[in-house]
Amino acid sequence: MDGREDMTRTIPEDLEAFFDAHAARMRAELFDFLRIPSVSARAEHRADVERAAEWLAASLRAAGLTAELHATAGHPIVLGEWRQAGAGSPTVLVYGHYDVQPAEPLAGWTSPPFEPTVRDGRVYARGATDDKGQLFLHVKALEGHLATRGELPVNLIFLAEGEEETGSEHLTPFVERHAERLRCDAVVISDSAMFAPGRPALLSSLRGMAYFQIDVEGPATDLHSGTYGGAVVNPAMALARMLATFHDAEGRVAIPGFYDQVRESAELRRQAAELPFDEEGFRQEAGVPALGGEAGLTTLERLWTRPTCEVNGLLSGYTGDGGKTVIPARAMAKVSCRLVAEQDPAEIDRRLRAHVERVKPEGVRVEVRLLAGGRAWLASPGNLYFEAASRAVAATFGREPVVMGDGGSIPVVGDFERILGAPVLLLGFGLPGENAHAPDEWLSLENFELGMRTAAVLWEEVRAAHGRSPREAQ
Amino acid sequence: MDGREDMTRTIPEDLEAFFDAHAARMRAELFDFLRIPSVSARAEHRADVERAAEWLAASLRAAGLTAELHATAGHPIVLGEWRQAGAGSPTVLVYGHYDVQPAEPLAGWTSPPFEPTVRDGRVYARGATDDKGQLFLHVKALEGHLATRGELPVNLIFLAEGEEETGSEHLTPFVERHAERLRCDAVVISDSAMFAPGRPALLSSLRGMAYFQIDVEGPATDLHSGTYGGAVVNPAMALARMLATFHDAEGRVAIPGFYDQVRESAELRRQAAELPFDEEGFRQEAGVPALGGEAGLTTLERLWTRPTCEVNGLLSGYTGDGGKTVIPARAMAKVSCRLVAEQDPAEIDRRLRAHVERVKPEGVRVEVRLLAGGRAWLASPGNLYFEAASRAVAATFGREPVVMGDGGSIPVVGDFERILGAPVLLLGFGLPGENAHAPDEWLSLENFELGMRTAAVLWEEVRAAHGRSPREAQ
Repeated sequence: MDGREDMTRTIPEDLEAFFDAHAARMRAELFDFLRIPSVSARAEHRADVERAAEWLAASLRAAGLTAELHATAGHPIVLGEWRQAGAGSPTVLVYGHYDVQPAEPLAGWTSPPFEPTVRDGRVYARGATDDKGQLFLHVKALEGHLATRGELPVNLIFLAEGEEETGSEHLTPFVERHAERLRCDAVVISDSAMFAPGRPALLSSLRGMAYFQIDVEGPATDLHSGTYGGAVVNPAMALARMLATFHDAEGRVAIPGFYDQVRESAELRRQAAELPFDEEGFRQEAGVPALGGEAGLTTLERLWTRPTCEVNGLLSGYTGDGGKTVIPARAMAKVSCRLVAEQDPAEIDRRLRAHVERVKPEGVRVEVRLLAGGRAWLASPGNLYFEAASRAVAATFGREPVVMGDGGSIPVVGDFERILGAPVLLLGFGLPGENAHAPDEWLSLENFELGMRTAAVLWEEVRAAHGRSPREAQ
Repeated sequence: MDGREDMTRTIPEDLEAFFDAHAARMRAELFDFLRIPSVSARAEHRADVERAAEWLAASLRAAGLTAELHATAGHPIVLGEWRQAGAGSPTVLVYGHYDVQPAEPLAGWTSPPFEPTVRDGRVYARGATDDKGQLFLHVKALEGHLATRGELPVNLIFLAEGEEETGSEHLTPFVERHAERLRCDAVVISDSAMFAPGRPALLSSLRGMAYFQIDVEGPATDLHSGTYGGAVVNPAMALARMLATFHDAEGRVAIPGFYDQVRESAELRRQAAELPFDEEGFRQEAGVPALGGEAGLTTLERLWTRPTCEVNGLLSGYTGDGGKTVIPARAMAKVSCRLVAEQDPAEIDRRLRAHVERVKPEGVRVEVRLLAGGRAWLASPGNLYFEAASRAVAATFGREPVVMGDGGSIPVVGDFERILGAPVLLLGFGLPGENAHAPDEWLSLENFELGMRTAAVLWEEVRAAHGRSPREAQ
């Protein structure tokens, strides 16, 4: 089935009644969570990030799980557990993150980023969709299940970190150190978008990431552009000239060796070709005069199957009103590459450095730093939990999910599969255009409600799928 | 004479005694002037700029001149006068500016920019050399002359504006409107540097200026670089790619037609070739690992005889700590061109716009705005006041000034010559490396003292030169 036919929703009555009765309270709790400015990238929000971790742990305990905070050298990891389903039952790990992106530029927000505000059936707040809303709906799903039935059909591990937006530095070491305790049959992550409103999706791929900062240093201080202009190398111009060598005229990345490890996925290309993608809607969502990118490819191919190299930020010299005639002392660019299978962030780091070394001009010093990296991910084909998730989605949304790629990155997905040996299920309740890393981030409140119900039903379906699995038969 | 021989200093005793006796008070007054943060580019300093104008007018009155403030649509013009030298005496106009550059980046300052601080015989403060210190030494020279002798040997017009650092928008219209009142035999400006410590200089050229802001707009808001990356045009990368087309590999400006109006000056090239320029000292002052610029030229040729195109500032997307994976909604560059004779800023504006129009990519909107413009200047050869200034400098510094080009811009110099029909004398008391537009701006206190004395002696020499001029003989 391709999910084009509407089906009858079949949410169990007891769960539906509970979620319906408690909707206002659950929404108020979500808003409390969103009010905590847990911006992991900013030192001044350190206490807020800690507070968000404690808030989440308390909420897990209120739902009926045990919960612990595990300190790291960065932000704490929250670990919740419910393990009374019995030895024959499957164990599932739900992963998400309670940290959020910085809210800047603040001028872009219609309502303040940490004062959740409802407009047109959406809640607007930093972290609403990425990922507090999608994480919290799992907490509420567990609460609903435990409150109505007194138990879960699976053993449940709830793992949430506070460093996803800054590269998940301490998560993978934590998972490695506690691999025995975290052993499970499947990992479920809700940190992605559906294909379109009313069209839930299971993801078949994610792109990886290599995030760099490039610093160009010239004069010891900003110089008078009359006294020195024309006789020293301008760091801002040097940076622009280097960045301009990162792509060719066709929009392909021109860093030698950049594509060497790219493995083409026929499956992803087929998905990209088959889905009824609304290019004009996507253009309007992005708010751009025209779409662009690598020549000769469709938008979905560009997003799912091809790596990128983007400038995320530029800063140099005088940026205020009017003019100031300086040659800047330094210039900075944030540059990040989205990677596809099998690109290795460490190899991309080497390639980018070698390229910068070749193209950098005399007269300035250039430093390249890799701030974060993670590999791309392809779903392991034919896993039983995909079917379980499809049935859960069909029961709650009245429509089977589409299977599709995604241009984003969740660096730990590959680590989970490698360390825990369990397949990862990416079942997101966001929507395209929710401004995940931009001002006016929002989450559809209807999808928050349906997501809770899907997560509650999912554990029944996982239990049933597990009963049919070869592992159980042994 | 090329000024290489030391000569005896011959400052008149009465003047020397006065300046010596009042040195501490005059320095304290200079520091009061420097404490006023008259940053013309910033709306929040509007009242400070006004206060600086009033302070200067009061100081002119205290010296014995009349003084008026003339309101403009921007910042006020200060006009001081002393006209009792008699009809047979020459009239001289002293011009300068009481506004200053913004102090940012504040982190670069050793002591606060508006708290004048003395270290190693230098006063550190924003505006110390550009131009408050050099303007104020003229006020004190007039005070010294009037206090000791009761009169000046010339009729004196003192004209100071508060918008030099933002393009002198209202000065030229003011000069045009009051051309009759401002009519004079020579204009004297001290807003430039000497060739080296102990080597005063008269300028023979200035570069012009065309200052632009380039804004690139793409998405309506910052976009998630995973969700959209590869399928929309990145405004920051588009800006970098456009800026990279502004020069060729040899460091020449590659904007078609940019050099069409450049007139080569054999005189300037000769001066650049003859002066004993310290390249290594210049490199150390600039604090750069190596000098650079247009291929095949010396540093002085690059600075005095060639136009430039520099990036003065860049801003786009996320510029804080760590990483934020956005495609920026917009990107901005401040770009300014230093011009040489006969380049016309309006023509450069047309050339730059046409070039940007050619190279700008689809998928973004680009806006180019000319923020300020002014033509380059070449000294009219063989004017009598050059000789007068040479004698004044020889008397006070014990050395004749060198005649040299300058890479900076004083846009109104050409306007003065055109409107008032009087030659301009550029006699500066700054030094190379005084950080005019950068943090830790300073002025040599010895040059402040010698500059006062030079300005006081200058009026005697101008009077004497005037006596020998053909105009007087008529």
